[in-house]
Amino acid sequence: MTTRPTEPEKLSELGHVKMTQDGPESQMVDVSRKESTDRVAVARAVVEFPAGLLGRLRAGQGPKGPMEETARTAGILAAKRTGELIPMCHPLGLDHVAIEFQDRGENALEVRCRSACHGRTGVEMEAMVGVSVAALTIYDMAKGLDKGIRIQRVELLEKSGGKSGHWRASSS
Amino acid sequence: MTTRPTEPEKLSELGHVKMTQDGPESQMVDVSRKESTDRVAVARAVVEFPAGLLGRLRAGQGPKGPMEETARTAGILAAKRTGELIPMCHPLGLDHVAIEFQDRGENALEVRCRSACHGRTGVEMEAMVGVSVAALTIYDMAKGLDKGIRIQRVELLEKSGGKSGHWRASSS
Amino acid sequence: MTTRPTEPEKLSELGHVKMTQDGPESQMVDVSRKESTDRVAVARAVVEFPAGLLGRLRAGQGPKGPMEETARTAGILAAKRTGELIPMCHPLGLDHVAIEFQDRGENALEVRCRSACHGRTGVEMEAMVGVSVAALTIYDMAKGLDKGIRIQRVELLEKSGGKSGHWRASSS
Amino acid sequence: MTTRPTEPEKLSELGHVKMTQDGPESQMVDVSRKESTDRVAVARAVVEFPAGLLGRLRAGQGPKGPMEETARTAGILAAKRTGELIPMCHPLGLDHVAIEFQDRGENALEVRCRSACHGRTGVEMEAMVGVSVAALTIYDMAKGLDKGIRIQRVELLEKSGGKSGHWRASSS
Amino acid sequence: MTTRPTEPEKLSELGHVKMTQDGPESQMVDVSRKESTDRVAVARAVVEFPAGLLGRLRAGQGPKGPMEETARTAGILAAKRTGELIPMCHPLGLDHVAIEFQDRGENALEVRCRSACHGRTGVEMEAMVGVSVAALTIYDMAKGLDKGIRIQRVELLEKSGGKSGHWRASSS
Amino acid sequence: MTTRPTEPEKLSELGHVKMTQDGPESQMVDVSRKESTDRVAVARAVVEFPAGLLGRLRAGQGPKGPMEETARTAGILAAKRTGELIPMCHPLGLDHVAIEFQDRGENALEVRCRSACHGRTGVEMEAMVGVSVAALTIYDMAKGLDKGIRIQRVELLEKSGGKSGHWRASSS
Repeated sequence: MTTRPTEPEKLSELGHVKMTQDGPESQMVDVSRKESTDRVAVARAVVEFPAGLLGRLRAGQGPKGPMEETARTAGILAAKRTGELIPMCHPLGLDHVAIEFQDRGENALEVRCRSACHGRTGVEMEAMVGVSVAALTIYDMAKGLDKGIRIQRVELLEKSGGKSGHWRASSS
Repeated sequence: MTTRPTEPEKLSELGHVKMTQDGPESQMVDVSRKESTDRVAVARAVVEFPAGLLGRLRAGQGPKGPMEETARTAGILAAKRTGELIPMCHPLGLDHVAIEFQDRGENALEVRCRSACHGRTGVEMEAMVGVSVAALTIYDMAKGLDKGIRIQRVELLEKSGGKSGHWRASSS
Repeated sequence: MTTRPTEPEKLSELGHVKMTQDGPESQMVDVSRKESTDRVAVARAVVEFPAGLLGRLRAGQGPKGPMEETARTAGILAAKRTGELIPMCHPLGLDHVAIEFQDRGENALEVRCRSACHGRTGVEMEAMVGVSVAALTIYDMAKGLDKGIRIQRVELLEKSGGKSGHWRASSS
Repeated sequence: MTTRPTEPEKLSELGHVKMTQDGPESQMVDVSRKESTDRVAVARAVVEFPAGLLGRLRAGQGPKGPMEETARTAGILAAKRTGELIPMCHPLGLDHVAIEFQDRGENALEVRCRSACHGRTGVEMEAMVGVSVAALTIYDMAKGLDKGIRIQRVELLEKSGGKSGHWRASSS
Repeated sequence: MTTRPTEPEKLSELGHVKMTQDGPESQMVDVSRKESTDRVAVARAVVEFPAGLLGRLRAGQGPKGPMEETARTAGILAAKRTGELIPMCHPLGLDHVAIEFQDRGENALEVRCRSACHGRTGVEMEAMVGVSVAALTIYDMAKGLDKGIRIQRVELLEKSGGKSGHWRASSS
Repeated sequence: MTTRPTEPEKLSELGHVKMTQDGPESQMVDVSRKESTDRVAVARAVVEFPAGLLGRLRAGQGPKGPMEETARTAGILAAKRTGELIPMCHPLGLDHVAIEFQDRGENALEVRCRSACHGRTGVEMEAMVGVSVAALTIYDMAKGLDKGIRIQRVELLEKSGGKSGHWRASSS
């Protein structure tokens, strides 16, 4: 290992410490030489409920109360802590996290999270963590009524910024 | 509010502070009077990959290296922090968290998490958070090759302990 | 230092390591020999607003939106992390945290937090941290309209459990 | 939701996900387009003690030992974690946090916290969290002698940087 | 995976999910069936300074000020968060953490940490994390004067409680 | 205290709050006026095992499984949280953390950590925390076989960036 900024694929060559196993190793990508640009990502998750449950929850009838403000707060807080949860993610100074909810028919609720920063690496994982924790919070607040809830389609919808530029999921 | 242990539904009656809004409010359930029992839960998530990607990742070809040990570690660490992430969850002294992976055909990987404690409330959310963060870590380590990965079927499979006893998902 | 449970005042006598300064040192109290009992505490904080501001906030006109559900969520999450914030506090498995709000005239909002656990030490700090972070969250959501907000009377109102038994503030 | 940087007030217009409730929602302000400037804030809290208690604490007679270094450390650590505690705050790379104490007569101790960063949003909440956690730590270290301690006047004294420029409390 | 408490060595047999790699996998030990007993551990670390530096630091001449109270606070806080840092450690409700310092000749400072809980697993890692973070804090506060400081002999000195009973290092 | 950026040594002069003790106080250095440069640091720790133990661990025979991927993940995650653990450290947006392992003869394992960022202060503590937590994780995974493991030579090997420029340990 040296103190010179290194391209990730050359890490082992430059390192003073050799790899001790024959196989590959997990690693955080070195972004020192990447350009700082405006980065934005949007992800979603869909919470599917047994028939009739979403209506009861909307009326605040779950044992833990109304869901959306609590789930939004939990998702925003978690998105800010992405670097603590996902091992190979870089810690980022986020400029924005927004979480919104929309019904998908009578028995499903879609969660979307938009994350943004000005930095050397993308904010996809922040958006993915944001929707996941918001959806898990909804699950938690509803599970006392029925455990047969399922979180589906946790996926990236769109990203912009960085060398690879704009990307949009075909399904979005 | 008083210092007597209270049933959750009576909280507002006993409280010295009245509710300031007409509607219901979110709340953490008071488990002071629940019995301490052995609690176990098993949850799963399924990571779906574009065709061929999982094979390449298995060979360690992702930019962040091999996935499973890193994802297991991330999932276990996150399960232990469930009470920090999910607002209305109680902090729990977990006795066990295990995370395992199994191929579901050529293009999907199933993650399962088992959580256990001896306490006054269940460990369902710990298992749900464990599989979610393990699956998100896999997504993170693979997304450099293809962003079209999707996390599906995040759901509880089984739980035991507590007043409601044993429960098993019809789909498990 | 030895592995025998020790009374806190005897720590230095028993220790293999002598104190290096003449003066006293901060310490976490050893509660190993205390009895596990039901512990409850109630604390409050009062947020004082410049004239008219509370009404505007109640109408959701702050730049960060409506306050109470967000502040309740933040306060509950922080109460659970008291042992991470307050150095000499013991980590506790809380059974309950509740936060409520009540108007105190036209220009003040009182926050109350009730915390409960079954353990060897009290939950006063959990209630104090809960009201503080809830009040700070309200400050944060309102400060874009007027910075002249002040948090007052952060204090314990009542506690029960443990050797010292029930205590109630004269001002509560 | 889109990946374009958005003014906060237009978020819902641009969003692909409609609001599901008639009322307003909490949100983190999008600071992507704000200018990075030097930001500084100073806040205070005043800890009021029952007569005579502060003198005893100053002599290190509390059950948890001397207070100031421990409270300073706790306050600095907490100020750095403001974005984890206050939901709608942005995570910030602080350049400086300082906490100082000054007697206010015989029975009160004033805590001040100065926070600074170079960034797109202010550091008021970091200073407010710093004084709050420092004051709560003092409360914790003193409460074994007397629970009738009260934290008062948690408020911002001064801020500089950003579009709104320099601001000073009339009471400072 | 099942919801029955399992002996760790039988986990893979019982599991519904097969291991996907030929080799062994990391795991958190299942302590559900272990007995709750009083657990205590004592660990140490020795900080070695270039000649003369410790004397200057004792006089408070480092750029970050006097060391011991700050290092004690940091070590106690970190010991309480051991389960967040060390992946396969169980989260524990500690009853006690104490950190003390003692000169070892003119150029070395020994740090000792004692941790205690009543639980199903030992507190060795809590004591090891406590001395490590206290020693790292001393390093941090001194490194502005000389970077040639070294932390040595981070090791367990003694433990008691649990099935394996009392253990004492030959070197202690 | 004022809102002007201050040189650390002048803090008390400028402060509105006087020091309340005669002695010096701990402080976070104000880096507001330091230049942002590329910062890199490399640190190491050496884990010494009783004879024969390292070979058994390499074969995955410890009760918690194979060590290196888990220890690397733990070390990287901890390095990112250095500002939460070490009180006077600044929170940093790291561009890179890498951890590698190399045998040192038959009974010792060297851990190295490289950390990098573009910022106003160095990343030495991030590298020191990274090797410490990676080494502690190895200790944790091995201690079930033998508690006589010792972490040695936790030290900085090299740093670059900032006003003091490049530095290399004589022992590296």
